[in-house]
Amino acid sequence: MGHYSSRMDTMPVSFLREILKAANSGKIISFAGGLPDESLFPGNDLKNASIKVLEEQSAKALQYTVTEGYQPLREWIAERYYKTRGMTVSPSEILITSGSQQALDLIGKVFINKGDPLLMEGPGYLGAIQAFSAFEPTLISIPVNQDGIDIPLLEKALLHNPKLLYLGSSFQNPTSICYSENIKNRLASQLASTNTFIVEDDAYGELSFDGTYKSLIKQLLPDKTILLGSFSKIISPGLRIGWIVAEESLIRKLTLAKQATDLHSSNFNQMLICQYLKENNPDKHINTIRQHYQYKMQLLYDTLCKALPPSIAIHKPEGGMFIYLNLPPSVNADELLDKCLKHNLVFVPGKYFFPDPGLATGNGIRVNFSCVPPEDIIHGGTLLGRLISEEVNTSS
Amino acid sequence: MGHYSSRMDTMPVSFLREILKAANSGKIISFAGGLPDESLFPGNDLKNASIKVLEEQSAKALQYTVTEGYQPLREWIAERYYKTRGMTVSPSEILITSGSQQALDLIGKVFINKGDPLLMEGPGYLGAIQAFSAFEPTLISIPVNQDGIDIPLLEKALLHNPKLLYLGSSFQNPTSICYSENIKNRLASQLASTNTFIVEDDAYGELSFDGTYKSLIKQLLPDKTILLGSFSKIISPGLRIGWIVAEESLIRKLTLAKQATDLHSSNFNQMLICQYLKENNPDKHINTIRQHYQYKMQLLYDTLCKALPPSIAIHKPEGGMFIYLNLPPSVNADELLDKCLKHNLVFVPGKYFFPDPGLATGNGIRVNFSCVPPEDIIHGGTLLGRLISEEVNTSS
Repeated sequence: MGHYSSRMDTMPVSFLREILKAANSGKIISFAGGLPDESLFPGNDLKNASIKVLEEQSAKALQYTVTEGYQPLREWIAERYYKTRGMTVSPSEILITSGSQQALDLIGKVFINKGDPLLMEGPGYLGAIQAFSAFEPTLISIPVNQDGIDIPLLEKALLHNPKLLYLGSSFQNPTSICYSENIKNRLASQLASTNTFIVEDDAYGELSFDGTYKSLIKQLLPDKTILLGSFSKIISPGLRIGWIVAEESLIRKLTLAKQATDLHSSNFNQMLICQYLKENNPDKHINTIRQHYQYKMQLLYDTLCKALPPSIAIHKPEGGMFIYLNLPPSVNADELLDKCLKHNLVFVPGKYFFPDPGLATGNGIRVNFSCVPPEDIIHGGTLLGRLISEEVNTSS
Repeated sequence: MGHYSSRMDTMPVSFLREILKAANSGKIISFAGGLPDESLFPGNDLKNASIKVLEEQSAKALQYTVTEGYQPLREWIAERYYKTRGMTVSPSEILITSGSQQALDLIGKVFINKGDPLLMEGPGYLGAIQAFSAFEPTLISIPVNQDGIDIPLLEKALLHNPKLLYLGSSFQNPTSICYSENIKNRLASQLASTNTFIVEDDAYGELSFDGTYKSLIKQLLPDKTILLGSFSKIISPGLRIGWIVAEESLIRKLTLAKQATDLHSSNFNQMLICQYLKENNPDKHINTIRQHYQYKMQLLYDTLCKALPPSIAIHKPEGGMFIYLNLPPSVNADELLDKCLKHNLVFVPGKYFFPDPGLATGNGIRVNFSCVPPEDIIHGGTLLGRLISEEVNTSS
């Protein structure tokens, strides 16, 4: 009836609900999620912080505020980059957003005209595909290898003069890979002479299992990189607080777009997080998360190694929340999912992490471990390995 | 350099910062705000509610959740409409948003293609102009009279086949007027046979000074009206929780747009508000706000009546947060503002509440009372009245 906007025709629907409908009886083991482990949320410390904020500054916390965000929180984030990466960022180069997802929406608003070419990782973060799609760009997918984006194919794609290149340089969703120093340097020198901005999504940067920090592309190309961060993976996603780091004139544009979008992110939540950070030891807390996720990853890795045929190599992640399994071409991921569903087991086929699932390359599946209980990791991982082995054997 | 999207060229900049730069020395009396009185925020009750939520349900409150919103909160809102307006709404017809402002952004996303005609009130809510402008519509302004939108001019504008008509039927921002039953009925019968959806913003509906509720256009044209509500004026704007009421198939579209925009609104804040509503008497709290605003309105009204020349009629609002003064054509609102700024007094000229301030009709100024201390209302109101009188006398 032509009543809705044309962008509604191209916005991808979340497939997860459809999948879960097919597995509606009995207990489901889900490797399909992407949630943090909620047993790690600092509920009690946040309670104490909320008491303090509402006892001492309730008028400020509950009132409207400026779009840019709570200044002490912007200062904490700036200091954090200096501490973890030796990177100098001014608080005025930081805009607080309603989670990292909103950062993507605001970047889309500020940059994308209908039809503008935009480079994405293939596979890459589904939420970015959804957010950018609302502005009707032409999404071009560049394959991601074990050490980062494919540089020769990136070079070719840059001929389209894309407005943006979106990527996750550390523990990327869905593959958990990290860009090597070599790839980061080559990418930076390729981009330096173009008009393309890099959107570097670092939502998982704190989740390295060994506690080290990868360098950022932002450090190589500061003026052309828009860096995204989030408290979702290290404190709580339910508070919906993330941020954008960009040079000041761009922050002003993004602030204008945010003002039109939701005025500002919850002031109470910003002050709550700030109070929590001040009164606790976030490094200690983040270390606990790292160790817990490393333990779960190792459990899943060992289980899969045991259950899978030796012909399938498993890349062991150094951080993040997922193992990405590259299946042999003979195994059809959709058929495997159907089979798993009959056993009340769910994962996400890799094709959903491409702008057009019909044009997906590779044959991966994303297996989440962060929010799966250890007994389910063992039981589900063994089952998944067995079902993949059966598919491999049937086809051979 | 053509790097940013074309929507950034048309998005209106907030003028308030510029105004305040001009009045940067000494104490400013500001009638320019639109904030609730923060002394009325239920800080202590929210503290108790937050303790309960974080003690009993912290894992749920701090985790990711569904885009639609927290089900018990949707149920409370549905019941509230039945209680206050006798209107039956299903919780599945409600989408929780990050404030009312986000509702406008999502509606823009779902409906507006570049160039689509859209009808706005003139004067009308500036935030709606900003939110919709991001989608590059053709905004058409329909004058607002003391009893609502101008029906003959609306009829004419409907010939453009607009996608949306945005309005505030009760205590509208900036004029505080209410639509009469007659205007609501005529509007509904005019719209019934068109393809135009009504966006009825009811952010101020609870703020009637006598505690009564105006009927909603939503009740006359339920399928074609998208109704917006908010906790910002009755609990706290800093929590950023509002909602959209629309028929279910449209809620599904809006939910898809919201998922791409920010995944969901803070689950913690939704549960916090729900807990507060359950454990307290919101009607009693809202009555306190009403009485307080009525007292301040009366103070400003009496002060202005005394200070203004009798030729200027003041419409006394029945609710809301503003008095809208219609100045004689001989007084230039911009020059008056310049003069006021020299006395450290600020208000908002009515022209800023039009899509194109250069094409504004009428000669009004918006004077806020909700967040102004009583002594400033008297001092500032007297000064404003004197300066207007001087302008009237100079020109006569």
